[in-house]
Amino acid sequence: MTTAAPTATESVARELVEFCKAGRNLDAISKLYSPSIESIEPMDFDGMPARMTGIDAIRKKNEWWYENFETNRHDVDGPYVNGEQFAVRYSFETTNKKTRERQQMNEIAVYTVKDGKIAQERFFNQVTDR
Amino acid sequence: MTTAAPTATESVARELVEFCKAGRNLDAISKLYSPSIESIEPMDFDGMPARMTGIDAIRKKNEWWYENFETNRHDVDGPYVNGEQFAVRYSFETTNKKTRERQQMNEIAVYTVKDGKIAQERFFNQVTDR
Repeated sequence: MTTAAPTATESVARELVEFCKAGRNLDAISKLYSPSIESIEPMDFDGMPARMTGIDAIRKKNEWWYENFETNRHDVDGPYVNGEQFAVRYSFETTNKKTRERQQMNEIAVYTVKDGKIAQERFFNQVTDR
Repeated sequence: MTTAAPTATESVARELVEFCKAGRNLDAISKLYSPSIESIEPMDFDGMPARMTGIDAIRKKNEWWYENFETNRHDVDGPYVNGEQFAVRYSFETTNKKTRERQQMNEIAVYTVKDGKIAQERFFNQVTDR
């Protein structure tokens, strides 16, 4: 017995991972995200608030990403499932298009599924050694 | 600006990761867990419900683990932080003490910190390929 019906979550989780592995993040948003999606980043960034609501805002955030960064390498690990939530670990190597600075970035995202759509995404940033 | 005070979460997160890397999970529970800790596994297991509350139940779950499994190798990746929550990715290779079966297990845990203590742990199991 599981805490919640795993099938809907697992199915959405597998689809999201497939889209992300193929670099088709905007298609994932169109197909899998709720119109009222809530997105929670660890902090405000470049004029965008940490917490944003609505699929248009989330599309803009993703478009901003593609305008500002080239992805040299990306690795998608998951999904990991519990009830109506699932987690994915992302690892990127990016180049900032303006500064040409290369950056290695690891993050974990936790997604909440309601009525067969992703209703919340929450991103966790890797804490670096001091 | 961040969504919540990151310092308390980050400090607890770093301590938990250090304990787990050293295999000192029971010490982590004693030092970092709230007495009213809520634990949410993906499913019931061996007579234990998926959802358990209280530090004694969580200690018993961990003792059950040590009684039943040898850990041959473990890798702790994290912490990853957002506000009052943090995530850790665990990778284990274990041997079942009764059956001698070896198993590779990956999971992500999401922890919620309240008043400087871990108030909830939620485990996500890796979905395997079909």
